[in-house]
Amino acid sequence: MEELFHHIQRYISISREEFLEIEHYFDVIKLSKKDHLQQYKNSSEYLFFVVSGCLHMYFINEKGDNQTVQFAIENWWMNDPLSFYHSHKTEFYFQAIEGCTILGITKQNQEKLLAFNPKIERYFRTLYQIAYGAALYRIKYIYEASKAERYFHFVQYYPEFAQRIPQYLIASYLGLSPEYVSEIRSKKLS
Amino acid sequence: MEELFHHIQRYISISREEFLEIEHYFDVIKLSKKDHLQQYKNSSEYLFFVVSGCLHMYFINEKGDNQTVQFAIENWWMNDPLSFYHSHKTEFYFQAIEGCTILGITKQNQEKLLAFNPKIERYFRTLYQIAYGAALYRIKYIYEASKAERYFHFVQYYPEFAQRIPQYLIASYLGLSPEYVSEIRSKKLS
Repeated sequence: MEELFHHIQRYISISREEFLEIEHYFDVIKLSKKDHLQQYKNSSEYLFFVVSGCLHMYFINEKGDNQTVQFAIENWWMNDPLSFYHSHKTEFYFQAIEGCTILGITKQNQEKLLAFNPKIERYFRTLYQIAYGAALYRIKYIYEASKAERYFHFVQYYPEFAQRIPQYLIASYLGLSPEYVSEIRSKKLS
Repeated sequence: MEELFHHIQRYISISREEFLEIEHYFDVIKLSKKDHLQQYKNSSEYLFFVVSGCLHMYFINEKGDNQTVQFAIENWWMNDPLSFYHSHKTEFYFQAIEGCTILGITKQNQEKLLAFNPKIERYFRTLYQIAYGAALYRIKYIYEASKAERYFHFVQYYPEFAQRIPQYLIASYLGLSPEYVSEIRSKKLS
């Protein structure tokens, strides 16, 4: 749980003693590569924090293809915030790209945790504020950038993702075909 | 300030006496139609709540055109959360589509307010959680829907926006040309 402790400390002041009380609210979930979170837990009910490994969040489009909308590596939170909030079934799937260790908290446990230590509201408020702000810039970028710019921007600004995530998933996340990504990469190298 | 009081009450329990202490942290800003927020305030430094009227948030794309990314009507919050958080200059503009009355709070005043009444963290955490969740579904929708579906989905699910916002701004928000929107509307009517 050391990773979560350090992550919370980045945003709020919290002692190790306080954290020891917090960690009881979380479940540890282990996923093998290609496992889906919903094989182990109801993914609509969980908010999860990646301790190690890498996940993607995707939906199945009308053609029956998986379309990735988000990645999470170490120290990233992930879930479907609307389904979590409204207690609805999520339209997204959560799959391990690598073997993962995840900490998961249910809505009920999150409420208990926030009642027990209201300082944690500030931590989550700050994370959601940043995540929402980043989503607005992402929408700006989807409208603004050419297909090639989208790819090279991702590789430049998110090297920690680009180095470990298969190209076809990066292509999906950017709304590009894997063939197109292969083509612009080989042009760049030639 | 009655609108803000009722909005906060939707998410947390707050008395009128508590709210009377909160309202001092806000500035009242009046905008005429077509005014930009930055004519009156530094828009990077403000988080604002629309009491009446309608605003849009846009950027200027490489062609020099305004590209709308968000609308706000009564009881909606709006700003650039990343520039607000990092104290950077925003890349977005905020313009009144109708005459507006807005309550604005600076980051400094928001911090004072949250220190004075930490319950408000929960209010903002909940709002950002919902906004981020909605942004993920919006990205899903951008990838998934056909151009015509985007338009008719917006009109169906956001009638309170569709009825008062000019068609060319709805087209911009959806990443469509105004000509395309005119065409599919006239086909639907014929």
